[in-house]
Amino acid sequence: MTKIAILGFGVVGSGTAEVLTENKALIEERLGSSYEIRYILDLRDFPDSPFADRVVHDFNIILNDPEVSVVAEMMGGSHPAYDFTKACLEAGKHVVTSNKEVVSTFGVELCRIAKEHGVRYLFEASVGGGIPVIRPMINDLSSNKINKISGILNGTTNYILTSMRDQGASFSDALTEAQKLGYAEANPSADVDGIDAARKIVILAALACGKLADPKTIPTEGITAITLTDTKMAQAFGYSVKLVGHAKVSEDGKLTAFVSPRMVPACNPLSRIDGVFNGILVDANMVGEVMFYGPGAGKLPTASAVVADIIDIIANRDKATKPILWEAAAVSDMADFADYTCRRLFLLKDGGSLPSALEKAELRRIDGTVGALTEAMTETEASALAESVKDMLLSVYRVLD
Amino acid sequence: MTKIAILGFGVVGSGTAEVLTENKALIEERLGSSYEIRYILDLRDFPDSPFADRVVHDFNIILNDPEVSVVAEMMGGSHPAYDFTKACLEAGKHVVTSNKEVVSTFGVELCRIAKEHGVRYLFEASVGGGIPVIRPMINDLSSNKINKISGILNGTTNYILTSMRDQGASFSDALTEAQKLGYAEANPSADVDGIDAARKIVILAALACGKLADPKTIPTEGITAITLTDTKMAQAFGYSVKLVGHAKVSEDGKLTAFVSPRMVPACNPLSRIDGVFNGILVDANMVGEVMFYGPGAGKLPTASAVVADIIDIIANRDKATKPILWEAAAVSDMADFADYTCRRLFLLKDGGSLPSALEKAELRRIDGTVGALTEAMTETEASALAESVKDMLLSVYRVLD
Repeated sequence: MTKIAILGFGVVGSGTAEVLTENKALIEERLGSSYEIRYILDLRDFPDSPFADRVVHDFNIILNDPEVSVVAEMMGGSHPAYDFTKACLEAGKHVVTSNKEVVSTFGVELCRIAKEHGVRYLFEASVGGGIPVIRPMINDLSSNKINKISGILNGTTNYILTSMRDQGASFSDALTEAQKLGYAEANPSADVDGIDAARKIVILAALACGKLADPKTIPTEGITAITLTDTKMAQAFGYSVKLVGHAKVSEDGKLTAFVSPRMVPACNPLSRIDGVFNGILVDANMVGEVMFYGPGAGKLPTASAVVADIIDIIANRDKATKPILWEAAAVSDMADFADYTCRRLFLLKDGGSLPSALEKAELRRIDGTVGALTEAMTETEASALAESVKDMLLSVYRVLD
Repeated sequence: MTKIAILGFGVVGSGTAEVLTENKALIEERLGSSYEIRYILDLRDFPDSPFADRVVHDFNIILNDPEVSVVAEMMGGSHPAYDFTKACLEAGKHVVTSNKEVVSTFGVELCRIAKEHGVRYLFEASVGGGIPVIRPMINDLSSNKINKISGILNGTTNYILTSMRDQGASFSDALTEAQKLGYAEANPSADVDGIDAARKIVILAALACGKLADPKTIPTEGITAITLTDTKMAQAFGYSVKLVGHAKVSEDGKLTAFVSPRMVPACNPLSRIDGVFNGILVDANMVGEVMFYGPGAGKLPTASAVVADIIDIIANRDKATKPILWEAAAVSDMADFADYTCRRLFLLKDGGSLPSALEKAELRRIDGTVGALTEAMTETEASALAESVKDMLLSVYRVLD
């Protein structure tokens, strides 16, 4: 009998309790052993919940109960989630989480502590919600060197961008709609400013190269400045505007990781990931491109991934498993972002004559705006070009080549 | 030091040797142990291959070498692949394979023999080529009851159907082109008649419900009868014609599994799986819909999955792992296909008045043909309706609802 504690009885926490209960018979049959939810930690009481008798308010009850061997942390935020996770691992309890903020910020330390105490720290639900991506990257692409990852990692922004493209909604109208539907929070900054996607792409990048970059320092642009003209211009070129987390490991092992709106060509399968869905496209040296697609958030989908981690732990509890171990990415581990190379789409006020630097660009005109699609160029070159046309410049997009 | 034998040095076999060689340093670092390719069994010699000195013609050399602990079977066909697999498992050797014919036909027996001898029989590469799908279904959807699987499982037919839709090529022209490009074999029957897809869908269905259906007896239709009018009519309704392997586990545990051309709505992510790519959409009770996408065939992609299985075996060789165990699906395990329910698209010669049964259908007309999209109906009802309009009937398609 495995005794499980749930930290945080919000959306994902209550979903985890629901999955563990709803599919109990099937999961216990697969495991060949039984489990129970022993505690649920939350500040609130839930008198009407079927789990009311499991709710506790004092974390130490869980920490000090030696029978609790698996803890599912779904509190969100860094503190006390990080502190509780660390304490549980140090007490020899396995921890699973959906908390991308904690994994992306403290993953190096927490993975190391888990290893030192012979327990596991798993976080399938921290990226892509219910989509299997972390374990498949480790176990199924194990024969590959991973070269590149491009992901639509945030359902809120993808819902907004899909509405802008398909319904012609403005950014603010689409955001309001997303908030009404519960897809966006009252304070949407973590989503629309790309912060959530940055946390997720550094986790995926660490799986590819073993180095965890600081999500706060990688280049991160959100979607707040995207206009309807931009999305129309994208369509004129056969592109969709998507917020993409991108990671690339160069031949010499240096890592590039950033988040920005991208012009995604129709031939790229990410162009068709719409609404609140997520998609993660992985380019690996033997298999080529594979993509994982599904619900990137939501109560039961995310809980499905949390419980898959719990099952993994229970099924392998008496075996030595290979720990995930990362190093913190040093400055010298990172490629110089100034050298990042891709095609660019410049949007300029139409009217004046185009500068010679854009003479070879492919041009489209709509709504008094000219779109100029360039050859591949570096960030440095793109900045210089933007500076040279600054009087006409509306925006510049990277193409996802 | 793990000693590996490769059975069959064709496309996938030579690709497996290439992956094991090309990524050796990286794989050995991940494993923390070393390996070597000890033997390659083939009828031919390969004097110019870097593996020439490993080639043997007598299977017994491999079988009787106690140092060979992992055998990768990539011979294709049932015999002697099945016989060699069985002998290896009985001799206590782990076996991995890309051979969907053997897995779908003899999987029940071979999985049981593997368990009895304390070894593993893994076959990630047998479905979806390089796409991670079998291990993710087992490990990552472990908290779910799998309700439905819909897969574009055959790259050859998907290439042909994509050419018909996008280039307006006829079936026979598209097939000839596919043969020129090496995507289709000289005798294309296994692909275009749906036999390959039938083998794959019964494997996926067995992962969902534990019962392996006979791929020779499930309803199987290929793509040879599909006309350009059909693909144009599909587009008129916003659909793409795709060859879909479909499996469904009903509430009472009964299995439906079949292969047929389907009208796939644009909102279904399978509608955008084009060319030689494969996609497998899994509907599970907690996560909802997830899709796995990538190269469904090809030398290195398929070998990538074979080697992932080899790595899994080496990494877990001293641990008890949960075996895959199936039963052969009995007639009583199968749902009555006559009850299978979905919408239908009838294509009829235009001209005469439509029968009253199609009065409520949504109609489109192109090229002297009328398309009539019905409400959901059973196979029995669809057959009766087809019989009632047989003088005008050109074809009937199931919609992938």
